[in-house]
Amino acid sequence: MEIATPYLLFLGDVPDALAAKTALGIVDWRPEWCLGQSRLAGCKADAGIPDMTIAEAKAAGVRTMIVGAVNAGGVLPDHWVASIVEALDNGLDVASGLHSRLADIEPIRLAAERNGRALHDVRHTTERFATGKGTKRPGLRLLSVGTDCSVGKKYTVLALERAMRAEGFDADFRATGQTGVFISGRGVAIDAVVADFISGAVEWLSPAAAPNHWDLVEGQGSLFHPSFAGVSLGLLHGAQPDAFVVCHEPTRSKMRGVSHALPSVQEVIDLTIACGRLTNPAIRCVGISINTAALDDGAAAACLDAFATEYGLPAVDPIRTGVRPIVAEIGRVFGTP
Amino acid sequence: MEIATPYLLFLGDVPDALAAKTALGIVDWRPEWCLGQSRLAGCKADAGIPDMTIAEAKAAGVRTMIVGAVNAGGVLPDHWVASIVEALDNGLDVASGLHSRLADIEPIRLAAERNGRALHDVRHTTERFATGKGTKRPGLRLLSVGTDCSVGKKYTVLALERAMRAEGFDADFRATGQTGVFISGRGVAIDAVVADFISGAVEWLSPAAAPNHWDLVEGQGSLFHPSFAGVSLGLLHGAQPDAFVVCHEPTRSKMRGVSHALPSVQEVIDLTIACGRLTNPAIRCVGISINTAALDDGAAAACLDAFATEYGLPAVDPIRTGVRPIVAEIGRVFGTP
Repeated sequence: MEIATPYLLFLGDVPDALAAKTALGIVDWRPEWCLGQSRLAGCKADAGIPDMTIAEAKAAGVRTMIVGAVNAGGVLPDHWVASIVEALDNGLDVASGLHSRLADIEPIRLAAERNGRALHDVRHTTERFATGKGTKRPGLRLLSVGTDCSVGKKYTVLALERAMRAEGFDADFRATGQTGVFISGRGVAIDAVVADFISGAVEWLSPAAAPNHWDLVEGQGSLFHPSFAGVSLGLLHGAQPDAFVVCHEPTRSKMRGVSHALPSVQEVIDLTIACGRLTNPAIRCVGISINTAALDDGAAAACLDAFATEYGLPAVDPIRTGVRPIVAEIGRVFGTP
Repeated sequence: MEIATPYLLFLGDVPDALAAKTALGIVDWRPEWCLGQSRLAGCKADAGIPDMTIAEAKAAGVRTMIVGAVNAGGVLPDHWVASIVEALDNGLDVASGLHSRLADIEPIRLAAERNGRALHDVRHTTERFATGKGTKRPGLRLLSVGTDCSVGKKYTVLALERAMRAEGFDADFRATGQTGVFISGRGVAIDAVVADFISGAVEWLSPAAAPNHWDLVEGQGSLFHPSFAGVSLGLLHGAQPDAFVVCHEPTRSKMRGVSHALPSVQEVIDLTIACGRLTNPAIRCVGISINTAALDDGAAAACLDAFATEYGLPAVDPIRTGVRPIVAEIGRVFGTP
């Protein structure tokens, strides 16, 4: 899936910023692609970029309108349809991260057809994948893994992309979730792939590359999450990472959506290596990425120090401290540009 | 998916028995459901049951015609369509294990509609699953796992169902692959489920049951297979087995379809327990099931003895020796009826 940039972010009339977190994530990481936002009366979210009509967006050079907000249930509200049809009639493509498919809504499908525009449903892949082969491919790969869902796996690899590029590394973010796909303009929502093709889809996403090229692959779920571990394992085998970073939220007591306790960082390191060596015997952990948002400055520093000491690895918070210590570890182990 | 029995097996005009292995597997395990076979001119497969016209099958009480053969590519040949339409026009449902969907073929879809018949595509589930919760459910469960694909996981649990029932256990086979679904008349082709719902689909397939009831869940792939390990892990977490049996083919040197060596039985036991305890801390191995078809009698007996001695567990070949030693181990650990 390749999404044409730049974007107009459609926020609808969502009741709070959380419902627009996809749009806010795109602005965080690709501000240069986000020319404006389109909001309906009553919208309580604000991406902090100029409000535009769809016609203004077209005139400004926008090529795709991103439906970057969700209402409860993930379905498209009827009163958003007119804006999507208007975007198509103005010559924009439309991309959505909702569970419902744009093409399943008759007026949207017809508008796309009559204008020759693309509809991208990032939760529904139409790509046909092969099953994974597990053969080692040239190029270097890093995967973010986690003690749980929603602990900063996407944020960590995006921060690594920015920091590695700043130091001259040839590094590309590889998106495996819907927000990540909007941020990179391409990728696969790996949890929407048919189960037989999880690792094969990742092999497609991160193909053979130059020996010094880094693919920074967005992790999903956790090998210890009873809902999603199958996705995490297929992703690990397909990504065949040389290096991985463990992401963790130290104040969380239960895994998201279930009653299970979080595993320790050590358990995640051990199982990731035990399973990951199937497709890359040299797999190793290069750092720990901690979301310390719930801690004050002193507690956060103490937490990072404790992890760094216990594991003998760089321990960072991508927001509070940045990820440069992990970049340094990558350079130490694999070489600098 | 619930498929009405008894069946007429449609073999088309396939060139050999291998192309009809789904049909042959159904006859092996559910001969009482297989009233007849329907073959086109030139068919080189024979399920060993009476040839019937579709009208004869209807008169004999058949309720579903199973498309139990595949041609190269898994697509439905045009010259099979007329037989399927005839079955629908005679009031039969039709079930297929092909990759292509019956309902995508216009004459078949129309025939099903005008006759009010069901079309079952077992490789394409239409059931909406929830994500897995990983909560322990009442009832006992056994899962077959493997050192590779196609090492006897389905055959082993079917043999266990037969042997356990003969000894008075309350035990049901739970199908997770297409042939298994035809054999049990229900189930889910787990490799066709969207990745996010692998464990959830297995929780649906094997729901809470009476404390002494055994669900015997058909395993898929291997935790060590780089193409399919994600499916195997989601299946393990969803099945939350109390007991598992490791299936193995001792003469195979490479895993199916890839260049990786097979893991040892010990590696499979260790990783199955390491991962399986997430949803069932009491998980344990109760036996080893070896496909010794490639060995002569003496070598087969020596092979089973060697495994039994090395692991301190019953080691059987379901065909050569039967699975009663594993049933005895299950009774010893979990109690007899």
